[in-house]
Amino acid sequence: MKIRLSILGATGSVGGSAVSLVEAYPEVFSVAALAAGKNHRLLYSLIRRFRPRLAAVFSEREREALFKLFKEEGCKSPPQVETGDYGLELCALHPEADVVLSAVSGARGLVPAFAALRAGKKVALANKESLVMAGDLLGDRERALISPVDSEHSAIFQALGGTLETGPLRRILLTASGGPFRGYSPMRLKSVTLEEALSHPSWNMGRRITVDSATMLNKGFEVMEAHHLFKVPYERIQVLVHPESLVHSMLEYPDGSILAQLGPPDMRIAAAYALTAPKRLPLLEDLSGQGLRPLDFQRPLTFEEPDRLTFPALALAEEAGKKGGTLPAILNAADEEAVEAFLQGKIHFTLITRVLEESLSRLGGSPLNSLEDALEADKSAREYALSLMRKFES
Amino acid sequence: MKIRLSILGATGSVGGSAVSLVEAYPEVFSVAALAAGKNHRLLYSLIRRFRPRLAAVFSEREREALFKLFKEEGCKSPPQVETGDYGLELCALHPEADVVLSAVSGARGLVPAFAALRAGKKVALANKESLVMAGDLLGDRERALISPVDSEHSAIFQALGGTLETGPLRRILLTASGGPFRGYSPMRLKSVTLEEALSHPSWNMGRRITVDSATMLNKGFEVMEAHHLFKVPYERIQVLVHPESLVHSMLEYPDGSILAQLGPPDMRIAAAYALTAPKRLPLLEDLSGQGLRPLDFQRPLTFEEPDRLTFPALALAEEAGKKGGTLPAILNAADEEAVEAFLQGKIHFTLITRVLEESLSRLGGSPLNSLEDALEADKSAREYALSLMRKFES
Repeated sequence: MKIRLSILGATGSVGGSAVSLVEAYPEVFSVAALAAGKNHRLLYSLIRRFRPRLAAVFSEREREALFKLFKEEGCKSPPQVETGDYGLELCALHPEADVVLSAVSGARGLVPAFAALRAGKKVALANKESLVMAGDLLGDRERALISPVDSEHSAIFQALGGTLETGPLRRILLTASGGPFRGYSPMRLKSVTLEEALSHPSWNMGRRITVDSATMLNKGFEVMEAHHLFKVPYERIQVLVHPESLVHSMLEYPDGSILAQLGPPDMRIAAAYALTAPKRLPLLEDLSGQGLRPLDFQRPLTFEEPDRLTFPALALAEEAGKKGGTLPAILNAADEEAVEAFLQGKIHFTLITRVLEESLSRLGGSPLNSLEDALEADKSAREYALSLMRKFES
Repeated sequence: MKIRLSILGATGSVGGSAVSLVEAYPEVFSVAALAAGKNHRLLYSLIRRFRPRLAAVFSEREREALFKLFKEEGCKSPPQVETGDYGLELCALHPEADVVLSAVSGARGLVPAFAALRAGKKVALANKESLVMAGDLLGDRERALISPVDSEHSAIFQALGGTLETGPLRRILLTASGGPFRGYSPMRLKSVTLEEALSHPSWNMGRRITVDSATMLNKGFEVMEAHHLFKVPYERIQVLVHPESLVHSMLEYPDGSILAQLGPPDMRIAAAYALTAPKRLPLLEDLSGQGLRPLDFQRPLTFEEPDRLTFPALALAEEAGKKGGTLPAILNAADEEAVEAFLQGKIHFTLITRVLEESLSRLGGSPLNSLEDALEADKSAREYALSLMRKFES
């Protein structure tokens, strides 16, 4: 029996890893649904290759562009194509999908991920915003349906043998590369450029997560993610900077023993495990032509404390996570807007964290009782962050 | 329900770890039987503390010394005391023991370990000679009763969640400290002393295993042990020198993912896990007053290839393991005698490996069909090694 996938965010970075797995293992996977954003050309080529029943794009504009391509190329059995959040949700709930890979970027991933989980579908979760914004709303039944895709959480999931149940634990040691600005002073950070922020030392990822790694907010989000996935209190989750990015995270037990997962920094490994756990595919053999190499243990593995002074976003996130309510959703929304402004050259790198601070302290948190609460906090925080940045600009 | 232990080698190094666990957790463990060698004074104090039903000592001499102590101190309910191999075997088969910890040093451990396994008892196995000499005679039913105590095999056992079943695997990466002479040239090895050989850089162990670590024969024995415990072919077991001795071994899967177990180099962790797996005791909390500290990740973790030129004993063992039959038993017996001679100052360090080479090539191997075959090979090899060393001396 093939594993029938619905891939949300099929044209993104993690989506690309999933696509290469489906291509390498046509006997293992098939594709029921594909959702993309604005890259209709790439989506079109995926549709031709995998023939899903359903596709989704960002808006009517991409839908029309897609239909134009179907017509030009004489596509015989084009899929149903839907748009916007509705399209994403339809893909997440597609009756022929066994596993939903949620690799959408940002808050847009929240509703479809919860829709799939509440419908009892297995979700391979790369969209960390779902847990950051609304992890507290996750019931045990839904939680058990999640397989993490983030390399750090995958590491812990793997060390646990493919479950989220840790049993008694001393700590989760969540490793962090430290990003491109590791070792910088707060002063030196003032002169970094967009290009530098986009040069991640070890991982090849999407633009937003790359910038979030540079501020270390991403690691703060991952702390929240670990808290919700593994039901581990914040005091027991410790960030450890590991610049080589080969140890992907660790579990420390009360007897002093530590289990770690290591591997090349390649998302295909974590993505594959999320789809097939506890089984594993022979990726080293089958993807060797596509750049997957075993670890060679040539470089020393080093570890250091994170620098919370230079990277205050990490502590901001840890704090927001502990306080809970809608604060994490506010933090994420403000960050999405701030990073977008940074990517467009509108604000400087160090202002990203300032936008986060101001947004959290100005908006404050409120209780989180439903997805609507999270979505409303998201909306207000975006508005506030945008107005704040307009002030910076002027 | 307490776990009732029979500890073979109670006065040795691993035995001492077990004793400290029983002392720290009287609600978890009780002691049904204790076997020691010649250290009757220490055994006596253990008997007073744990009140086993049965004790065993090396010979009639230690038995009498023990009875004398019972009498002098007015011991009210002294245990039954037996001697020699018979005494060891009785301890291994004691009906009130749930788990037999076999921490005897050397070939003497073979018969009692197999006796316990064949009787269906769970065996926490520190005596690697049992597997080196006769691992091929182990049936699946007996194998499933073993919990490894050696830190390397415990690491793999832990990474597997407390089972010996690896599933599809690329490699076992068996880490080695490299011993006190790591980085030496073959020439420089010619001038090392007994004291230097006994100064292990990271582990505090018995004298024979410390010398075996210095020649790296111990790591070769551990390769055999891993082969038999985890049913992994020799080609898939790779020794990796890791001088910091914090990563205790690793499993590499066909997808490129590696699971590793790390921890302070302290035998109490592995011994406790062997006794309670898959559960763990809160050792960090309960043994903090006795020197157990969590890993602090201050030092870089480094890895290098073993130097098979300077340490030919490693390759000798790997070769003997692959060829099988009685060769591993011959290798072990020759080594026991050679190390004993080295410890007594009779031969130089580099002669140990020469004794091994000569013994293997002179005696050759024969098929291994029973424990008797292994014991016979053991006997002939000792005789040969002793005669060979007499030649060296003269």
